[in-house]
Amino acid sequence: MTDILLINPNTTASITDLVLKTAKRFASKGTNLRAVTGAFGPRYIASRVGYAIAGHAAVDAFANDRGRKDAVVLACFGDPGLAALKEIAKVPVVGMADASILQACAMGNRFSIVTGGERWQAMLEEFVASHGLSSRLASIRTVAPTGADIARNPKAAMALLAKGCTACVREDGADVVILGGAGLAGLAAKLKDAVDAPLLDGVACAISMAEALAKQKLAKAKSGALALPAPVESVGLSPALAKLIAS
Amino acid sequence: MTDILLINPNTTASITDLVLKTAKRFASKGTNLRAVTGAFGPRYIASRVGYAIAGHAAVDAFANDRGRKDAVVLACFGDPGLAALKEIAKVPVVGMADASILQACAMGNRFSIVTGGERWQAMLEEFVASHGLSSRLASIRTVAPTGADIARNPKAAMALLAKGCTACVREDGADVVILGGAGLAGLAAKLKDAVDAPLLDGVACAISMAEALAKQKLAKAKSGALALPAPVESVGLSPALAKLIAS
Amino acid sequence: MTDILLINPNTTASITDLVLKTAKRFASKGTNLRAVTGAFGPRYIASRVGYAIAGHAAVDAFANDRGRKDAVVLACFGDPGLAALKEIAKVPVVGMADASILQACAMGNRFSIVTGGERWQAMLEEFVASHGLSSRLASIRTVAPTGADIARNPKAAMALLAKGCTACVREDGADVVILGGAGLAGLAAKLKDAVDAPLLDGVACAISMAEALAKQKLAKAKSGALALPAPVESVGLSPALAKLIAS
Amino acid sequence: MTDILLINPNTTASITDLVLKTAKRFASKGTNLRAVTGAFGPRYIASRVGYAIAGHAAVDAFANDRGRKDAVVLACFGDPGLAALKEIAKVPVVGMADASILQACAMGNRFSIVTGGERWQAMLEEFVASHGLSSRLASIRTVAPTGADIARNPKAAMALLAKGCTACVREDGADVVILGGAGLAGLAAKLKDAVDAPLLDGVACAISMAEALAKQKLAKAKSGALALPAPVESVGLSPALAKLIAS
Amino acid sequence: MTDILLINPNTTASITDLVLKTAKRFASKGTNLRAVTGAFGPRYIASRVGYAIAGHAAVDAFANDRGRKDAVVLACFGDPGLAALKEIAKVPVVGMADASILQACAMGNRFSIVTGGERWQAMLEEFVASHGLSSRLASIRTVAPTGADIARNPKAAMALLAKGCTACVREDGADVVILGGAGLAGLAAKLKDAVDAPLLDGVACAISMAEALAKQKLAKAKSGALALPAPVESVGLSPALAKLIAS
Amino acid sequence: MTDILLINPNTTASITDLVLKTAKRFASKGTNLRAVTGAFGPRYIASRVGYAIAGHAAVDAFANDRGRKDAVVLACFGDPGLAALKEIAKVPVVGMADASILQACAMGNRFSIVTGGERWQAMLEEFVASHGLSSRLASIRTVAPTGADIARNPKAAMALLAKGCTACVREDGADVVILGGAGLAGLAAKLKDAVDAPLLDGVACAISMAEALAKQKLAKAKSGALALPAPVESVGLSPALAKLIAS
Repeated sequence: MTDILLINPNTTASITDLVLKTAKRFASKGTNLRAVTGAFGPRYIASRVGYAIAGHAAVDAFANDRGRKDAVVLACFGDPGLAALKEIAKVPVVGMADASILQACAMGNRFSIVTGGERWQAMLEEFVASHGLSSRLASIRTVAPTGADIARNPKAAMALLAKGCTACVREDGADVVILGGAGLAGLAAKLKDAVDAPLLDGVACAISMAEALAKQKLAKAKSGALALPAPVESVGLSPALAKLIAS
Repeated sequence: MTDILLINPNTTASITDLVLKTAKRFASKGTNLRAVTGAFGPRYIASRVGYAIAGHAAVDAFANDRGRKDAVVLACFGDPGLAALKEIAKVPVVGMADASILQACAMGNRFSIVTGGERWQAMLEEFVASHGLSSRLASIRTVAPTGADIARNPKAAMALLAKGCTACVREDGADVVILGGAGLAGLAAKLKDAVDAPLLDGVACAISMAEALAKQKLAKAKSGALALPAPVESVGLSPALAKLIAS
Repeated sequence: MTDILLINPNTTASITDLVLKTAKRFASKGTNLRAVTGAFGPRYIASRVGYAIAGHAAVDAFANDRGRKDAVVLACFGDPGLAALKEIAKVPVVGMADASILQACAMGNRFSIVTGGERWQAMLEEFVASHGLSSRLASIRTVAPTGADIARNPKAAMALLAKGCTACVREDGADVVILGGAGLAGLAAKLKDAVDAPLLDGVACAISMAEALAKQKLAKAKSGALALPAPVESVGLSPALAKLIAS
Repeated sequence: MTDILLINPNTTASITDLVLKTAKRFASKGTNLRAVTGAFGPRYIASRVGYAIAGHAAVDAFANDRGRKDAVVLACFGDPGLAALKEIAKVPVVGMADASILQACAMGNRFSIVTGGERWQAMLEEFVASHGLSSRLASIRTVAPTGADIARNPKAAMALLAKGCTACVREDGADVVILGGAGLAGLAAKLKDAVDAPLLDGVACAISMAEALAKQKLAKAKSGALALPAPVESVGLSPALAKLIAS
Repeated sequence: MTDILLINPNTTASITDLVLKTAKRFASKGTNLRAVTGAFGPRYIASRVGYAIAGHAAVDAFANDRGRKDAVVLACFGDPGLAALKEIAKVPVVGMADASILQACAMGNRFSIVTGGERWQAMLEEFVASHGLSSRLASIRTVAPTGADIARNPKAAMALLAKGCTACVREDGADVVILGGAGLAGLAAKLKDAVDAPLLDGVACAISMAEALAKQKLAKAKSGALALPAPVESVGLSPALAKLIAS
Repeated sequence: MTDILLINPNTTASITDLVLKTAKRFASKGTNLRAVTGAFGPRYIASRVGYAIAGHAAVDAFANDRGRKDAVVLACFGDPGLAALKEIAKVPVVGMADASILQACAMGNRFSIVTGGERWQAMLEEFVASHGLSSRLASIRTVAPTGADIARNPKAAMALLAKGCTACVREDGADVVILGGAGLAGLAAKLKDAVDAPLLDGVACAISMAEALAKQKLAKAKSGALALPAPVESVGLSPALAKLIAS
C-alpha cells in the first residue's frame, strides 16, 4: 500500500475535492490518496503575492498532517513551497507543474503549457527558467476557460481549449502539450482527437511521478541542500509548524 | 493490462535477461514485460562507434517485434536511437538515461550519475547537454565495478560504489544520485544506508516512467517533429525495418 | 525628502535595529529611513522552509505599514517575497541580495558572495541562477563568523572573513566580492586593506539602489507581470493583508 | 563632496554639454560633475567602426584628465572602452548602458531598450549577450526620433517614442523600459503617463550608480582581471595616455 | 598531395556523384577526392529513423574503404555518425553541416540555414543546440526546391530560394546564410546578387575545412573522448567494420 | 591568385615579420600574403587598455592599405577590432583567435587554449563567452614561455609548453588544444608527440580559414548588422580612415 498526501495550498476545499477525485482516477491500484487544504491565504492562486502566501500555507498544511505518507503531491500547478517541502519532508515531494514538465520532456523535445489565469504566463515562464528548462519550452498559453465556463457551455469551452493546444503545436512548435491546473484535470482525454500532439494531464503526471518515486523507497538526504535543516525558534506560527522547524 | 517492450540495443542476450529480471521487480501489478535483443552490433556499448551502430540496432529490433505494446523502454543507459524510436513508434518510448535524469530532477536540484565504462563520462555529459539539462548536472563518475567484479568480491565492489556515490554528494554537490547501467540494476536499495542522498535505480526509473505515460493513453503526434515520417525506399535493411520506413 | 521602508522578514527586532542603524550610515542626506519586523516566522532565515514563511511575512509586514514611502528595501540577504512585493507595492522594491549582485556586476565581470549560514550556499546559487546571472558568479562562500563570534573575538573573526574573501579572488577568480547579510553590515570598510578586490556592503548596495530608483519617480506598471494583480478573497490572513489583496 | 567625471567618447562638444546638463538634474546634492569630450573620432557613434575608435578615444580622454574624481561615467549608451577604463582607473567606472540595464534588472524581470540609430539594435543585443544578460532582455527597438526631430515637432516625436515603448511592453513582454542615448535624456519623465511600465532614463541610471559606488569608497583591485596592467611601451599615442600605460 | 574521402551515408549513388563533382570544383590544386556510398539504409535521409540508420552506414562505409586518406568529409548536411567517425578515424573528419556552421560563424554573428526536407528544421535546430551554438542561429528555413524542381523550372526554383534566403536576412536577422544539402551545391554563386548577405555553400565549406585541418597534419587523440575506443566483439556487422572495432 | 592582407594591430614590426613568415609556411600555393603593422599603440597587446587602442589601430591600418585583397587576417590572438573590420571591409575578415576556436570546434567537442600573457586568461574567456562558445571551452592556460625564453632555453620552454598542453587534456578534459599567439606560431608541429591530443596552430587556422572564405567569393552584406555603415564625419583621424568612414 502506497499512501500519498495531496496538499492544495489555496483555501478552497471544493478545489481540493475536485483534485482528489481526479487523482483517484489516475492512481494505481494499491495507492491510497488523502488531501488537505491550506488553512489561510487566497481562495485561489493567481498572482505572485498569492504565490508567496501559498508557500507558507503549503508547509503549514504539511506540518499539520499527522497521517502516514510515502509521498506528497503539491496540487497547485506552479508548485508554491515545493523546495521547502522537499527540505522538511522525509518522503519524496512532487510538484504538479514540475512533474508535468519532466514527463513532457520524456515525451518530446519541446513542450507547451495551456492553463488558466493570465498572470501564470510570466510566473510559469520564470518557473521553467528557474528549473533550467527554458530551452525545452515551446510556449505557455493562458487561453483556458474557467471551470464555470466549462460548466455553462462545455462545447465552446472545449473548442477554445483545442484551439489553444493546436496553436501550441502548429505555431509554437510544441511536440507535446500539458493541460495544467486543477480546473482542466481530466480534459486531456476528451481533447485527444482535436489536437495533433500528445496531451498530458497535470494531475495524472503528478500522481504517477509520486508513485514512481515512492516505489523506490528512497532515503532522505542526510547532508546537502535538501537535508533536514537546523532547528530554529519561531513566533506566530501554528503549533505544529513551529514544532516541526524547531526540531 | 499494460504491455511494455524492453529493447536492449546491444547483442548480449544475457544482459537482456538481467534487465528484464530486474525490471520485473519494479513493475506494477498489471504490467506485462517482454524484452528483445539487438540483432547486430557490439556485445556492449562503450564508445561512440558502438553507440552509432546501436541506434540502428534499436530501430531494427523495434521493427522486428510484432507483439502488442503500450510503451517501449530503450534499455541501455545512454539511449541510442531514442529520437528515432519516438518518431516511428505509435506509443511512448522511454530511454533509461532520459527517464532517470528526469526523475532525478523531480527529486532535487542537482543530480549525479554513477555508471561503468570510462568513455560514458563524456558521452553522458553530451547527452545531458543535448537535452538542455547541463545546469542540473552535478557530475558524472565512472567508478562502477563491472558485473564480474561484483560477483567476485561483492563487498569490495559495493564499497567502491558507495565511495563514488558519496563523492558525488560531498564533493560535487549532488542532491540525488543515479545508478545507471544494467549492471548496477538493483544495487541502489543495497547502498541506501551508505550514501547521504537518495539513490535512483535506472531500471526502476525507466519502467515507472513508461507505466506513467502508458497509463495516460497519449495520442501519437500527427504533425511536427515526432509525427510518423514520410515513407522512403531503402536497400540492405531487414525486411521488417524496410517495410516500416516505406509505409 | 525620500522615504524608504526597510522590511526585515524575520522576527528578530534586534536585527531590524542593527540593519536600520547600518543603513542610516549609508543613506544620503534627505533620505528618511524606517524599519519594520516580520510578525511571524523563524527568528532568522537559514533554510528553505524559513524562506517560504518569510515570503509571507514580508508581504504581511508591507500590508501592515501605513507610512509614506518612496521605495522599499527587503532587508534579508536572499530576498524572500521580493517578486510579490514588486507586484503589490506602487513604489520600487529593492532586494538586498539582488541590489548587491547588480552593483557587483557594475564593478566587474565576475562576483563572489561571502555570507553566513551553510544552507545559503545552495539557496543563493539558485537565486543567482533564477535571475539569469550564473555566468557572472565566481563563487559563494559561507565562511562568515556569526555576530556573536565577531563580538567575542573580533580579530579572529576579521581574519577569517579576510581569508574567505581572498579565496574568492585568488582561487575562484572574482573581480569583486559582496559581504552579504545583516550580520556583516559595515565590515567591508574594515576589511578593505586585507583583500585584493573591491568589497561591496549588502546594506549600502540596497540603500543606494533604492535611492537611485526612488529619485526617478517611476510609474507603477499598469499592465504585465508586475502590475497590481486582480483582487482575490482570502481567509486567515491579517486584516491589512486580506484587504490589500482584495482590492 | 563626490567628484564624478563624465567622458563623452564621441567628438561633439554640444552632446557633452547636453549630457552634463541632464546629469546635473539627476545628481545628488554634494555631487560635483565635470565632463570631457573625445579628442578624435566620429562626430557620433553609430557603427562598429565608430565604436572601435571611441574605445581608444575614451581611454585617451581619461588619461588627459587631471582633475580629482571619485567615479567616472562613460556617457555613451553602448559603453565603448568600458573594460579598459575599469582596468586603468583607480575609481569605479560606470557605463551608461551597463548601469541602465542593471537598474532595469532591479525593477523587473525583463527589460527593453528604446534608442536611436538603427545599427545599435544588433550592437546592443551583443552588448547584453556579452554581459550574460540575454535571458533578461525583452527587446531592443530603435524607433527613437533624433534630437532634431524632437526640436522640430516635439508632439509627433513624443508620440512616436510612446508608441515604441508601449510596443516593448505589450508585444515584447517588457516589465520595464530604458530610454537610452544622450538625445533622449530627460524624456522618460514626460512619457511616464503614456506608457504602461516604468521608464528608466539612461543618464539618471548612470549618475546614481556612480554615486552609489563612489559612496562606498571601494578599493582598486590589486590582482586579477581588473587590476592595473603591467606597464608597456607605445608609439603614436597622446603623451598622457602613453605615460599612463607605461607606468 | 592531400587525399580526402567523401562519405555519402545514404544509398543513392547519383547523389554521391553529384556531391563529388561539386566538391571537385571547390577543391584546391593538390587535393585528390574520392567518394563512397552507404551500403544500406534509406535512399535519402529525411527523418530521425533514417538518420539513426545512416550513422551506422557512415561508419560501415568508412570501415570498408581501404584507400589512403588525409581527411574525411561526411557529405550529408546533418552529419549522421560524425562523432563515431571522429573516434575511429586517425585523420580529421569534417561534417558538412558542422563545417558550414563554423565557417558561417567566422563570417558573422548570426547565421541561417536554408535547406530541403521539412523534418530537417527540427533536426538541424537540435544539431545546432547540441553543438552549443543556438545563440548564433538566426533561423532554419526549409523552403528549398528539390533537385527535380530545379531541373524542371530553374527560374522559379531560384526565385523561391532567393526569397527564402532574403527572409532569413530581413525577417530573421541573419548576417550570413548557408545553403545546405547536396541538392543545393553550387547554387550559392548563382544566387549571390539576389540576396543581401553572404551565401555559404555547404560543400565548399566542408572541403575547405577538411583541407585546412589536413594541412596541419594533426595527431590522433591518444586519450580522452575522441581517442580510439577499447576493442569490442560484435555480431552481424560487415567484416571490415567488425574488424575495425575489434582492434 | 588569392591576396590576403595580414594586419598586426600592435606596433612591433618584428612581430609582423614573424607572423608573415609563419603564415607563408601554411599558405596554399596561389595565395599571396602581405602584412601591415599598427601605426600607433602599445608594443604588444596584453591588457584591456591595449586591446581598446588596438581596435582603433586595426581599422586605421586597414584604411591605410591600398593593396588588392580577397581576405583580411587580423593577426593578433584576441582579435581587437574584428567586428569593425567585418563591417567596413568588402572582403571576409578572419580573426586569429576566432578562426582557431572554430577550427578547434570542427576537431572535437571541447577545446583549450594555451597562450602567453597572464591577463589574456580572463580576456579570452570573455572573448569565447561573447561568441556564445563557453560550453565548448575546456580551459585557457597562460603557461607559455615568451619568445625570449624559447630562444634562450628552447628545450625547457618546449617542456613547459608540453606540460601545459597535457594538463589541458588530462585535467581539463580538452579534446583539442590551440597554441595561440604569434610567439608560439609553428611550435604545434614540434610538440605533436608530447601531447595526447591534436594541437592547432593559430596562424595556420587563420590563414586556411581566410583562404576557405576567399575561395567562395562571398558577397558583402548589403543590409543588416555587417553591411557598410552610414557615413559619418570625424576629427583627428588619419586621412585614410576619416575618408573611409565618411563615404
